[in-house]
Amino acid sequence: MTPAELRTILEQVREGQTDTTQAYDQLLGAFRDQPFEDLGFAKVDHHRSIRQGFAEVILGIGKTPAQIASIAAEIVTRERPLLVTRTDRAAWEAVAAVVPGAEFHEAARAITLKRDMPPGIGTIALCSAGTSDIPVAEEAAVTAELMGNSVDRLYDVGIAGIHRILKQRARLEAARVIIVVAGMEGALPSVVAGMVSVPVIAVPTSIGYGASFGGVAALLGMLNSCANGVSVVNIDNGYGAGCIASMINHL
Amino acid sequence: MTPAELRTILEQVREGQTDTTQAYDQLLGAFRDQPFEDLGFAKVDHHRSIRQGFAEVILGIGKTPAQIASIAAEIVTRERPLLVTRTDRAAWEAVAAVVPGAEFHEAARAITLKRDMPPGIGTIALCSAGTSDIPVAEEAAVTAELMGNSVDRLYDVGIAGIHRILKQRARLEAARVIIVVAGMEGALPSVVAGMVSVPVIAVPTSIGYGASFGGVAALLGMLNSCANGVSVVNIDNGYGAGCIASMINHL
Amino acid sequence: MTPAELRTILEQVREGQTDTTQAYDQLLGAFRDQPFEDLGFAKVDHHRSIRQGFAEVILGIGKTPAQIASIAAEIVTRERPLLVTRTDRAAWEAVAAVVPGAEFHEAARAITLKRDMPPGIGTIALCSAGTSDIPVAEEAAVTAELMGNSVDRLYDVGIAGIHRILKQRARLEAARVIIVVAGMEGALPSVVAGMVSVPVIAVPTSIGYGASFGGVAALLGMLNSCANGVSVVNIDNGYGAGCIASMINHL
Amino acid sequence: MTPAELRTILEQVREGQTDTTQAYDQLLGAFRDQPFEDLGFAKVDHHRSIRQGFAEVILGIGKTPAQIASIAAEIVTRERPLLVTRTDRAAWEAVAAVVPGAEFHEAARAITLKRDMPPGIGTIALCSAGTSDIPVAEEAAVTAELMGNSVDRLYDVGIAGIHRILKQRARLEAARVIIVVAGMEGALPSVVAGMVSVPVIAVPTSIGYGASFGGVAALLGMLNSCANGVSVVNIDNGYGAGCIASMINHL
Amino acid sequence: MTPAELRTILEQVREGQTDTTQAYDQLLGAFRDQPFEDLGFAKVDHHRSIRQGFAEVILGIGKTPAQIASIAAEIVTRERPLLVTRTDRAAWEAVAAVVPGAEFHEAARAITLKRDMPPGIGTIALCSAGTSDIPVAEEAAVTAELMGNSVDRLYDVGIAGIHRILKQRARLEAARVIIVVAGMEGALPSVVAGMVSVPVIAVPTSIGYGASFGGVAALLGMLNSCANGVSVVNIDNGYGAGCIASMINHL
Amino acid sequence: MTPAELRTILEQVREGQTDTTQAYDQLLGAFRDQPFEDLGFAKVDHHRSIRQGFAEVILGIGKTPAQIASIAAEIVTRERPLLVTRTDRAAWEAVAAVVPGAEFHEAARAITLKRDMPPGIGTIALCSAGTSDIPVAEEAAVTAELMGNSVDRLYDVGIAGIHRILKQRARLEAARVIIVVAGMEGALPSVVAGMVSVPVIAVPTSIGYGASFGGVAALLGMLNSCANGVSVVNIDNGYGAGCIASMINHL
Amino acid sequence: MTPAELRTILEQVREGQTDTTQAYDQLLGAFRDQPFEDLGFAKVDHHRSIRQGFAEVILGIGKTPAQIASIAAEIVTRERPLLVTRTDRAAWEAVAAVVPGAEFHEAARAITLKRDMPPGIGTIALCSAGTSDIPVAEEAAVTAELMGNSVDRLYDVGIAGIHRILKQRARLEAARVIIVVAGMEGALPSVVAGMVSVPVIAVPTSIGYGASFGGVAALLGMLNSCANGVSVVNIDNGYGAGCIASMINHL
Amino acid sequence: MTPAELRTILEQVREGQTDTTQAYDQLLGAFRDQPFEDLGFAKVDHHRSIRQGFAEVILGIGKTPAQIASIAAEIVTRERPLLVTRTDRAAWEAVAAVVPGAEFHEAARAITLKRDMPPGIGTIALCSAGTSDIPVAEEAAVTAELMGNSVDRLYDVGIAGIHRILKQRARLEAARVIIVVAGMEGALPSVVAGMVSVPVIAVPTSIGYGASFGGVAALLGMLNSCANGVSVVNIDNGYGAGCIASMINHL
Repeated sequence: MTPAELRTILEQVREGQTDTTQAYDQLLGAFRDQPFEDLGFAKVDHHRSIRQGFAEVILGIGKTPAQIASIAAEIVTRERPLLVTRTDRAAWEAVAAVVPGAEFHEAARAITLKRDMPPGIGTIALCSAGTSDIPVAEEAAVTAELMGNSVDRLYDVGIAGIHRILKQRARLEAARVIIVVAGMEGALPSVVAGMVSVPVIAVPTSIGYGASFGGVAALLGMLNSCANGVSVVNIDNGYGAGCIASMINHL
Repeated sequence: MTPAELRTILEQVREGQTDTTQAYDQLLGAFRDQPFEDLGFAKVDHHRSIRQGFAEVILGIGKTPAQIASIAAEIVTRERPLLVTRTDRAAWEAVAAVVPGAEFHEAARAITLKRDMPPGIGTIALCSAGTSDIPVAEEAAVTAELMGNSVDRLYDVGIAGIHRILKQRARLEAARVIIVVAGMEGALPSVVAGMVSVPVIAVPTSIGYGASFGGVAALLGMLNSCANGVSVVNIDNGYGAGCIASMINHL
Repeated sequence: MTPAELRTILEQVREGQTDTTQAYDQLLGAFRDQPFEDLGFAKVDHHRSIRQGFAEVILGIGKTPAQIASIAAEIVTRERPLLVTRTDRAAWEAVAAVVPGAEFHEAARAITLKRDMPPGIGTIALCSAGTSDIPVAEEAAVTAELMGNSVDRLYDVGIAGIHRILKQRARLEAARVIIVVAGMEGALPSVVAGMVSVPVIAVPTSIGYGASFGGVAALLGMLNSCANGVSVVNIDNGYGAGCIASMINHL
Repeated sequence: MTPAELRTILEQVREGQTDTTQAYDQLLGAFRDQPFEDLGFAKVDHHRSIRQGFAEVILGIGKTPAQIASIAAEIVTRERPLLVTRTDRAAWEAVAAVVPGAEFHEAARAITLKRDMPPGIGTIALCSAGTSDIPVAEEAAVTAELMGNSVDRLYDVGIAGIHRILKQRARLEAARVIIVVAGMEGALPSVVAGMVSVPVIAVPTSIGYGASFGGVAALLGMLNSCANGVSVVNIDNGYGAGCIASMINHL
Repeated sequence: MTPAELRTILEQVREGQTDTTQAYDQLLGAFRDQPFEDLGFAKVDHHRSIRQGFAEVILGIGKTPAQIASIAAEIVTRERPLLVTRTDRAAWEAVAAVVPGAEFHEAARAITLKRDMPPGIGTIALCSAGTSDIPVAEEAAVTAELMGNSVDRLYDVGIAGIHRILKQRARLEAARVIIVVAGMEGALPSVVAGMVSVPVIAVPTSIGYGASFGGVAALLGMLNSCANGVSVVNIDNGYGAGCIASMINHL
Repeated sequence: MTPAELRTILEQVREGQTDTTQAYDQLLGAFRDQPFEDLGFAKVDHHRSIRQGFAEVILGIGKTPAQIASIAAEIVTRERPLLVTRTDRAAWEAVAAVVPGAEFHEAARAITLKRDMPPGIGTIALCSAGTSDIPVAEEAAVTAELMGNSVDRLYDVGIAGIHRILKQRARLEAARVIIVVAGMEGALPSVVAGMVSVPVIAVPTSIGYGASFGGVAALLGMLNSCANGVSVVNIDNGYGAGCIASMINHL
Repeated sequence: MTPAELRTILEQVREGQTDTTQAYDQLLGAFRDQPFEDLGFAKVDHHRSIRQGFAEVILGIGKTPAQIASIAAEIVTRERPLLVTRTDRAAWEAVAAVVPGAEFHEAARAITLKRDMPPGIGTIALCSAGTSDIPVAEEAAVTAELMGNSVDRLYDVGIAGIHRILKQRARLEAARVIIVVAGMEGALPSVVAGMVSVPVIAVPTSIGYGASFGGVAALLGMLNSCANGVSVVNIDNGYGAGCIASMINHL
Repeated sequence: MTPAELRTILEQVREGQTDTTQAYDQLLGAFRDQPFEDLGFAKVDHHRSIRQGFAEVILGIGKTPAQIASIAAEIVTRERPLLVTRTDRAAWEAVAAVVPGAEFHEAARAITLKRDMPPGIGTIALCSAGTSDIPVAEEAAVTAELMGNSVDRLYDVGIAGIHRILKQRARLEAARVIIVVAGMEGALPSVVAGMVSVPVIAVPTSIGYGASFGGVAALLGMLNSCANGVSVVNIDNGYGAGCIASMINHL
C-alpha cells in the first residue's frame, strides 16, 4: 500500500464511498503484511537508494559471465552505480556488451560503472602492508571511489621496516578515516592507530602460509589490537571496509 | 495501535470528526513504528501466548535468588507456567516465598510452576547414555512435561553395552518424537535413529574429559550422524530439546 | 528364520517329527544370530520400507556414473523411490539408460524417480538466505517432495533486508515445519523461529569466505540460536533436513 | 629536544657561541634518538591529549586496589578524564580516597572521573541483545559518555523477538553511529545494519554456553555479517567500541 | 527368556500342553524384545564377566563419597574386582566402611579391591616422560595390576635426556606390550616404538601450559607418530590404556 | 664395530700385537659413536628384520613412479616383503618392470610383493562402516596379510542399521584383534568393542563433509569411546592399524 | 662402565688375568646397555654440567613447598645454581630453611641461588609490551642473569605508542640478542626485529581476553612475523627464552 | 636530509647566509618527517646492508616469471645477493636472462646469485627427519650458504630409528647452531636439543596427513619441547630458519 492509496481510502470513507468495515479490513491487511519500505516515502526512499547502492554489489564468485552480465544490466537500468567484486576479464567482456562504459579494474578484480554520488567529506587513507595485499586493498579503493570518496593509497608500508609507515604521518593525519589491509601477523593497524586519532578499519588478508591459517593469524592480531580505534572486518573483505569507510566519510 | 483504535479513527473520519489529513498522519505513524504484535489480534495473541510460554523461561546462571524470584513473580501474575533452568535450592527458596506451589527439581536443576497446557498428542521418549548425562536429560524432561507432554525416560542405555538400548525397541517405537542425550562420543542418537522412523533430537553434553573438549566431540558426532532423522541442539541444551520435542508433539 | 519357519518347527515338535533337543538348538541359534529384522514381520517390514526409502539414498560424491547407475537400477527393482544426491548430468545420463523416467534436478544436483508415497499432512516451508544457498535448499526440497510432501519455497529472504522475511509471515505461519538454509552468519533461522511456533530445521551452508570457515560460522550461529524451536543438521546437509521435515510432516 | 632548544642552538651558531661541529653532533643525536612527540609542538600535543585521554584507561584485571588508586591519582593530576574498566567496588573505594569525585558504575564495572570533553556531534545508539550483555554494553556507554558523547540505550532487543528491534527504527535512524552488543549467535548487528545507513560497531560477548565457545560463535557471526557497515571488535570489548564510536561521532 | 524356559515351552508343545499358536506368540515376543544376553548362556556369561570386570569401573568425578561407596558395595557383592578412578581419600574412607579390605592408591587417585583374575602372559612395561605424568601412569598401573598383570614401571625417561630411555632397552624388549604416558610434545611413544617390536599404547597427558592446550599437542604428536605400532587413547586416560594392555597381555 | 672385530682386538691385546692404549682408543670410539644396531648381533638382527619389514614401507604420495620403483628394487634385493601405500597403477607398472611378481591392489591403492612371514596366531577381523571407507580398510587388510595374518573382512556394517553388525557377533568373537574403520561420527568402534573382549584398533577416515572436518569428528568420537579396549590411529592410517593388529596377532 | 674400568679390563687381558671370552662378554654388555654419558668422560661431563645447570630447573606448579625444598636441597649439594619457576613466597620460605641464601624474586615468581657461571659475551635486551607482561619477562630476566648474563630491561614499550620503542634504538642495537615479551596482538617482536640485525626470541603471553585465546593470537602473530630473525617459544615461557638467549650470548 | 645537508645548513647559519627561522623550519621538518635511515650514516648503512641483504628476498608464490625477473634485476644492480624462494624452473629462466650467473636450486625451489658475504664463525648443522622434509631443509641451507655460512647436512635422521641421530653426536656437537626440520610429530628438535648445548631452530613442515593438520601437530610439538634451547619458526619457513641461524653464526 502506498501513501497515496492510504489517503484515497480515507477520503472514500469520508465521502461515504467505502464503509468503515471494508476500510478496516484493507488497512488491517496492510498493517500485517506489507513491509514499511513498500510505502515508498521520500525519506525512506532516499535512505534506501543510498543503502541499495551498496547492497546491490554482485559477488562474482561462482557466477558465470552471462549471469553477471544479466544482473548488471538490471541494476544499471535503475540508474544505480554498478559494482562487481571478485570477478575477471571474461565477466567484464560480457558485462561491457550490455553495459556500455563499464570499467574493469584488474588489480581489484572488479567491474564498475560510475554514477554521480554525493562526495565524501574528507579523504580515506588506505594502507597495505605488502604488495600481495594489494588486490584486497584495491577492492576497498574501487568500492570507496565508486561511492564518491577520494582515496589516498599508501602501499607496501608494513611494519618490518617501521620507517616506511612513520614517514607517512602527515598523510595519515590528513585522513578522516583509514583502512589498513595486512596479512601475516596483521600488526600494521595497531601501529597506524597509535599514530592518529581517527577510526581505523582493519582488513586481514589470507596472504601467508603455514600458521597464518588463511588469514586467521592476521584476524586475531587485529581483534586483539592494543591501540584505540581499530575495528575489523572479515578476512579479504576489501569491499566491506570500503563501505564502512565511505559511510564514515559521508557523516 | 489496537484494532479498536483503528476502527474508531475510521468511524471518526466517516462522521467528519477527524479530517483525513490528521487520520492519514496517525495511520502512517502506526504503519511505520508499531510492531504488528502490538495490534493485539486474537490469532496473534494466541500464538504469542504459546510462544511466550516458552520464551519466558529464566536462565538461572548469573542471577541472584532475589532477581530470579522477582522475574518469576511477574511471569506468574500473567497466568503463565514458570520455568527456571540452571538454578539451585537457594533460588527455589526465594521463588517459593513469592510463588506458592513452585516446585524444585533437584536432578534437573530447575524450578517450575505448572499451568494447564494443551496436552501433547503422543509420548516423548527421552534416552540418556550415562548417569552423568541425567541433569541435562531431566532439564529436557521437566521442560517437556511443563508444556503438557508425557515423557518416557530411558536412562543409562549408552552404546558400550548395545543390548541395553536394543531391549527398549518397543518403547522407542511407541514414541512420537525422541530426545537423545549423550556425552563422550555422542553415538547413541545414531543408533536410536537407526531403530525408529520418528524425529530424533540429539543433545550433546559436556560430560567427558580430554579430547571431549567440553562436548565438542559429542556435538560433531551427532552432526555427522549417518542415520536419518537426527537434528542437533547446543551442548547441554536440555531446555531447547524439550521445547522442540513439545512443538513436534503438539502438531 | 522367518515366522513361517518358526511355526513349522513348532508344528513338527507337536507332531513328533522333530525332537525337542533339535528344535531347541535350532531356535537357540536363531535367537543368538538372526537380526529381528530378518524375521520379516509386517509391522517391521512396514517400518523398514519407510526407513529404507530414506536410507537408500545414493551419495553421488566419489562414485562413477556407472556405479551410480548400477546401484540405482537395483533400488528401483524393489519398487522404491530413487534419490541420488550431489551428482551431475553425466551420472543422470547413465541412470536414465537403465531407469526410464528418472529425472535430473539441476539446481539440486539430484536424480530422482518418484513412487507413490503417503502424503505429508501439511506444508513444509523452505527458506534460503541468499541465492548461493539455493543448491542446498533445492536438495532439501527434492528430498521432501520425493517423500510425499508439499514444499513452499521462500528464497533470498536473508536478514540484511529484514523486511523480506517479515513480509512472508503468513506463509511461514501456514507451514507445519520449516527448513531454513543459510550461510555466512547463519542468523535467519533465529529470526524465523521467533516469528512462528513450529519446529525449524536449520541447515548451515558452506557459502562464504574468510572467517566463515566453510560453514562453521553459520553452524555455530544456529547452534547458539536464542530462539525456541531451532535444531541443526550438518553443513550443506539439505538431504538430512528434508528427511527430518518429512518425518515431522508425516506424524 | 624541544623546539625552544633547537632554536637556541641555531641562535648560538649564528652568534658564534657554538661551533658547527658541536651543533651538528647535538642535532644528529636528536634526529636519531628522540621521538618526535618529545618535541612538544602544539599540534602534536593537541593530538596526543585527545589520544592519551583514551589511551590511559586502566584495565582493572589483575591489579590491586592500591595499584589502581596510584595510577588513577597520577592520571588525574594531568587534568585528564579517568577511566578504570573491569574493576570493582573495592578498587573504587581505594580510588575515591585519592581522587575525590570519582564515580563507580556498578553495571559497567567501571570507575570514572569526568572532565570537560568536546561534545560529540550526534547521538550514539547502543543496542544490546539480552540482559546478560548489559555489563559489556554499559562499559561502552560509560566510555562514550566520558568522552563527551550522548548515548541512547536500547537494551534487550535481541532477534528472537524481531519486533522489539523493528519498533526502534526511529531511534536507530536518529543515531550518527550505532554500537550493537550481542552474545550467542551474534545476529543483531546484521539486522540493525540492514535497517540503517550509518556505521555499526559490533561487540560480541562471551555470554552463552556450549558451542558459544566464550563468544567465538558471536564473533564469527558478526565477521560474516551479510549487511553493509558492520565492523567488529574483540569479545567483551565494550571499551573499544565506545572509543571508536566516539571517534566517529567527533569527526 | 532363559534356555530352560525355551526348553520347557518346546516340551509343553510336544506334550500338547501348549498349542502351537500360543508357543509361537511367546517365542516371537522373545525373538523381538529380549537381548540375547538375557538368555544367560554359559559362554556369554563367561565373556560378560570378563568384560563387566572392566566395564563396572566407577569414574569418581562428580560423585559423592556416599554414592561411590554405595555402587562399590553392590559391585563387590557380585564377587568382582573393584576399581574407582579419579577419586580421593574421603571417598576411600566411605568405601572402606562398607568394603573391608579396599585399598587406596594415592598416586593413582584410585580405590581397589583385588579379586583373583587370570594372570597376564607377559609383563606390561609402563613408561612415563616426566614426574608430573605419574598420576596418569599410576592409574594405568593400578588398572592393569587389578586385572592380573605384572607391570614394570620406567618413570621419568622423557626424551630431553634421550639416554634415560635408551638405557632401558632390555626392560622394554622384555615386555609383551608397552604403555607410554607423556605430556608436552608427546614424543616418547615414537622413540620407544622405534626401539621394540611390540604394541605401544600411547597416553597423552594434560600436563603442560600455553600451546600444550590441555594435552592436545601431545595427542597430535602421538597420532602422527612416524614409528610403527603406536595407537593412542584419550588425554589422561590411564584407565583405558591399562585395559587395552591387559587385553593384549591375556591373548 | 662388529662382534668379530671386538673379539679380534681383544685377541690382539692378549697376544701383545696391539697395546692397551691403542685398543682403549678404538673401543672408546666404538662406545661413543657406533649405534648398537650396527654391531649386528643375532638377537638384534632378528628383531630388526621383523621391525624393518614394517618400517620400509614406501609412502607413495609425492614420489614419481621411477622413484618408487628404484626404492622397491632395493628393498626386494634384501629379501624383504615389499609394500607401497597410497600409490596407483602407473607406479605399479614401473615397479613391476623391476620387481617381477609385484601385485597391484586397486581398492587398497597398494603394491606388494609377498615373502614368507611367520603366520599370525589367530584371525584379524576388519570392519568398515560404509563403502567409502573401504580403501582405508583395504590398506589395513593388505598390510596385515603381507605380514602373515589372516583377515576376516566385515564391510558396510555401520551403526545406522545396527542389526548389520549385531548379526556378525560370532565372527567378531572369533577374532584375536579387530580393526574398525569408520568416517562421519566414528561410532562403530564403540559398538564393536562393547560386543567383544579383544583389543579394537579404531581408524577414523576422512570420509564425510561439512562438520566432519576431514575426519576430525570421527577421530574425536573414537578417542572418547565409552567402551573398553579401543585405541586409535591417525585419520586414514590403514597401514598403521594393520601393523599394530599384526604385532598383537603375533604375540 | 668407566674409562678406567675399560682400561683395567684391557690390561687384565694383556696380562692374561682375564681371558678374551670373559672380556668380550663384559664389553659387549657395556656396548649394549650403558648410556655413553655414564662413561663419565671429561668433555661429556663438562657439557652435561652446563646442560644440567639448565635442565634441573624446578617447575613450581603443582608441587608443595616441601617437595620443592627437598629437590632444591639436592640440586644445591651438587654445587649447581638453583632455579624454581612459577612458585610463591610460601615455597621460598620452605626452600630458604634448607638452602641458606636462596633469593625470592616476587615479580618473576622465582627462587634462585646464584653460583659462579661463565659470563655471557654481550648484553641481552629484554623488551615487554605492557606492564601485565612483566612477570613473564622477569622470569626470562632471572633465568638469564642466573646463567651469567647481563640483562637490559626495556619495559612497557608496546606498539600502540610506537615512539616508545623507537626511542630505544641505541639500547637495542647494543644488544647481542633480544627477548621480546608481548601479549594481545604480539606485534612488538616484528617491530623490534625490523630495527636490528641480531636474533630476536619472541615470547607470547597469555595476557588478554576474548579472542586472545590465552595467548594464541600473540603466538600466531609472532610465528607469522614478516621481519627477519624472529623465532618463538611457548606461551608464557620466559624461562625458555632466557635459556636460549643465554646460549646465544655464550657462543 | 643527509648529514652533509645538515652540516651545510649549520654552516650557512654561522655565515649568516640562512637566518635561524628558515633553518629552524627546515630542521623541524626533517625531525618530523624523515626516517632516520634516510640520513645515510655509515654505521646505519652497514647495518642496513646486512639487514636488507636478508629483507629483499623475493617470495616467489603468486608472482609471474616476468615479475620475479624484474625485481631480481633491480636487486642485483645494488650489488646485493639475490634470493628467490618458492619458485620454479620457469622463473629461473626468466631471471637468468637478465641476471647472468643466477643459479637454480631444484631441491630448495630457490634461485640465487652469490655475493661476497662476511663468513659465519662456525658451522650450521641442518637435520631433517624424513626425505619429504628436504625441500624445506634445502631452502634453509641455500639461505644460510648465501649469507656466508658453512652448512653440515644430516638428512633422514628422524626419531623412529633413534640410532640414526645418536650416531651423529659428534657432528652435532661441532655446530655453533642447529636447524632441525621435521613434520608429523615434530619430535626431532627435542631429541637433538637434549644432546647439545647450542641453540636449536626448529622448523615444522606441512608433511603428513590426517591429524597432522598441515604441520600444526609438528608446530605444537616443537613449541612444547621439554628440552632447553629450542625456538620455533612458522611451518615450512626454511628461509626464516636459515636467516636466524646465520645471524647467530655471525655474532
